[in-house]
Amino acid sequence: MALIVQKYGGTSVGSVERIKEVARRVVDTCKKGNSVVLVVSAMGGETDKMIDLANSLSQSPPDREMDMLLSSGERISAALTAMAISELGVPSMSLTGRQVGIITDAVHTKAKIAKISADRVKQAVKEGIVPVICGFQGITESSDVTTLGRGGSDLTAAAVASAIKADACEIYTDVDGVYTTDPNIVPEARKLEKISYEEMLELASLGAKVLKTRSVEFAAKYDVPLVVRSRFSNAEGTLVTKEDKDMEQVVVSGIAYDKNQTKITIMGVPDKPGIAATLFKGISESNIVVDMIVQNISHDGKFADISFTVPKTDEKKAKEISDKIAKELDAKNVSTDKSIAKISVVGVGMRTHSGVAAKMFESLSNNGINIMMISTSEIKLSCVVSKKYTELAVRVLHEAFDLAKKKKAVKKRKVKR
Amino acid sequence: MALIVQKYGGTSVGSVERIKEVARRVVDTCKKGNSVVLVVSAMGGETDKMIDLANSLSQSPPDREMDMLLSSGERISAALTAMAISELGVPSMSLTGRQVGIITDAVHTKAKIAKISADRVKQAVKEGIVPVICGFQGITESSDVTTLGRGGSDLTAAAVASAIKADACEIYTDVDGVYTTDPNIVPEARKLEKISYEEMLELASLGAKVLKTRSVEFAAKYDVPLVVRSRFSNAEGTLVTKEDKDMEQVVVSGIAYDKNQTKITIMGVPDKPGIAATLFKGISESNIVVDMIVQNISHDGKFADISFTVPKTDEKKAKEISDKIAKELDAKNVSTDKSIAKISVVGVGMRTHSGVAAKMFESLSNNGINIMMISTSEIKLSCVVSKKYTELAVRVLHEAFDLAKKKKAVKKRKVKR
Repeated sequence: MALIVQKYGGTSVGSVERIKEVARRVVDTCKKGNSVVLVVSAMGGETDKMIDLANSLSQSPPDREMDMLLSSGERISAALTAMAISELGVPSMSLTGRQVGIITDAVHTKAKIAKISADRVKQAVKEGIVPVICGFQGITESSDVTTLGRGGSDLTAAAVASAIKADACEIYTDVDGVYTTDPNIVPEARKLEKISYEEMLELASLGAKVLKTRSVEFAAKYDVPLVVRSRFSNAEGTLVTKEDKDMEQVVVSGIAYDKNQTKITIMGVPDKPGIAATLFKGISESNIVVDMIVQNISHDGKFADISFTVPKTDEKKAKEISDKIAKELDAKNVSTDKSIAKISVVGVGMRTHSGVAAKMFESLSNNGINIMMISTSEIKLSCVVSKKYTELAVRVLHEAFDLAKKKKAVKKRKVKR
Repeated sequence: MALIVQKYGGTSVGSVERIKEVARRVVDTCKKGNSVVLVVSAMGGETDKMIDLANSLSQSPPDREMDMLLSSGERISAALTAMAISELGVPSMSLTGRQVGIITDAVHTKAKIAKISADRVKQAVKEGIVPVICGFQGITESSDVTTLGRGGSDLTAAAVASAIKADACEIYTDVDGVYTTDPNIVPEARKLEKISYEEMLELASLGAKVLKTRSVEFAAKYDVPLVVRSRFSNAEGTLVTKEDKDMEQVVVSGIAYDKNQTKITIMGVPDKPGIAATLFKGISESNIVVDMIVQNISHDGKFADISFTVPKTDEKKAKEISDKIAKELDAKNVSTDKSIAKISVVGVGMRTHSGVAAKMFESLSNNGINIMMISTSEIKLSCVVSKKYTELAVRVLHEAFDLAKKKKAVKKRKVKR
């Protein structure tokens, strides 16, 4: 008997047939004696349709109205899913963000959850009713509708799971768990039984598409056990949880890659204090997130080269600002390089094991892959390489860190199914 | 400077282009110095699509979930319309039934309005913002979403107009007002400048499709001046208002017809007390609304024939019940007749003018139209005739009561535009 939050994304509730599948899975889980609380996204494609409608009416639709518009998508999918579950004989009711008591700040289209009561969710569970919660949405103190931004439904699921003290928060996706790396590149990639919040966060921010950063952060903060599972099968999935001793034994848990960055280099910047500050202040004021930064002092000691990477979508703006600042700083010129990829190895074991960096650099160099930039964190090592080497680099590192083999027997997950 | 509620139906907001037209009309009205409050229905066709989805998931979708589902349609159209108005430079915001403070009973899918605060509507108007209200919806005391049933958006408009003491509540439709009869049948049919609530109610319940009964009832109760106008033109429309002296001068205001009834006759019912009561109690217990009733005593004084009419959609159920009761009562047999039409003349002047019935019967009979049933009210006279005579009967009566000619100069409407 467990209390389980299950979250299904837009693809999983994208048609009548799929909604029926979700309903069957929910009812099966209930019949095993569990209590289920559902969180759903809008039906796949519907959100895009609404955005198109909005854009055809307004050059810059007011954010408040976008939230009113887009939050409707989850109301539709939640109501339909509740109908499908009721049809199978298990009472069910849809609940909006407001009805769940998800109070957010007033930053429309990317609101942050301020508090959550979930009283009606608890009441429904007590009465044997399956609540189907509209993901992605909340309400401000002054009663306006907000949405939580990208990955908002995962966040709703984690927040509800925390509020009702669920035994697990299962995120259903098109993949059956978190893998050591992209199986499309390395067929031997292995599904992880569990992974720590921190590792998952690094992998998510490095481009792994399974879970969004915000939901993992929330789960970590409130210690919600997340499970990434497949909507196609009953396979166990990957448990994302607190770091434990088993995990520390594993030096590297996974390898991620990101082809969506551009490198910008400002060459010949006079080498005097405060220059990096000037540059990156200008860029951050444009809300562009800079990822990696490298500064080289040129041999004569008078000029420096500064390279940094930004998301490809921000390239144009970042280049403009760099050009402007380069002029002010009397720098020589600004160049951009789109054909780069960032390859990262992630593992909490790095904290206690040395030699990861050396092995990474050696493996890449042995295969003729030149490293353009390096950055490190406590549990992550990233290298920028030429984009054409992406797949090769991932394969080489997967092999070097021996990820295809299962490292240690890890304890079974405790939630009964 | 007037405060005007404008209500647009599903066809009027059925596409991006039409929403833009609505926005332009609203902005024009604002520029003339008026304050506008908008009420919109769901985009045409969307509600049907949602009902189809629901029906493909459940044999009998729970009413609460239907309300959650269908109320989404108005949120979408209201948000889009608010965007379109904002785009034209006039600030606008969508407001849900809840945000408007429309509290209803808990009878899902056909809730009744219990109270309405409209505080946010008043506040928005004060701040120069055009509120775009989601029609058709409210919220229960316990915070569940309800819908108001057929004609719900008109009702929302009338209720909001009453709550904010609007100078007028304009209902935009595909026709430019209320006509003396259907112009498709009588090309000389004349648009009425004004008509009383009571007459409008009779016409609405007799099948005129311009306004729904409930909104007229509400408007009458709270004395809200309704204006039926065309979304295609700036023509003045028809004012629906309190009865005044001018109106009494006009004996007959309009002629309505209804082809959607079936006549059921139970023949040879033993003529003893309580039989009609037994029959109609049975029928009303099935929620079937009986319209006209005629009972004839047969010549031998022992048996009676009872005829009554019901909406065509209820024919099957009504026949079953009649068969059952006829058997219990030892009646001879039950027959149904679908090929009937009800022709009605309506006018508050009937109260003070005699001879309307005589003129009606005479006109019909002079044209060889046999009258099968008759019913009367204070301001209405209805005859059931064979369906094939519908158009002829309408033309004959329109001519007989001289409706093509404008009877009296009536006072100009007082709302400035």
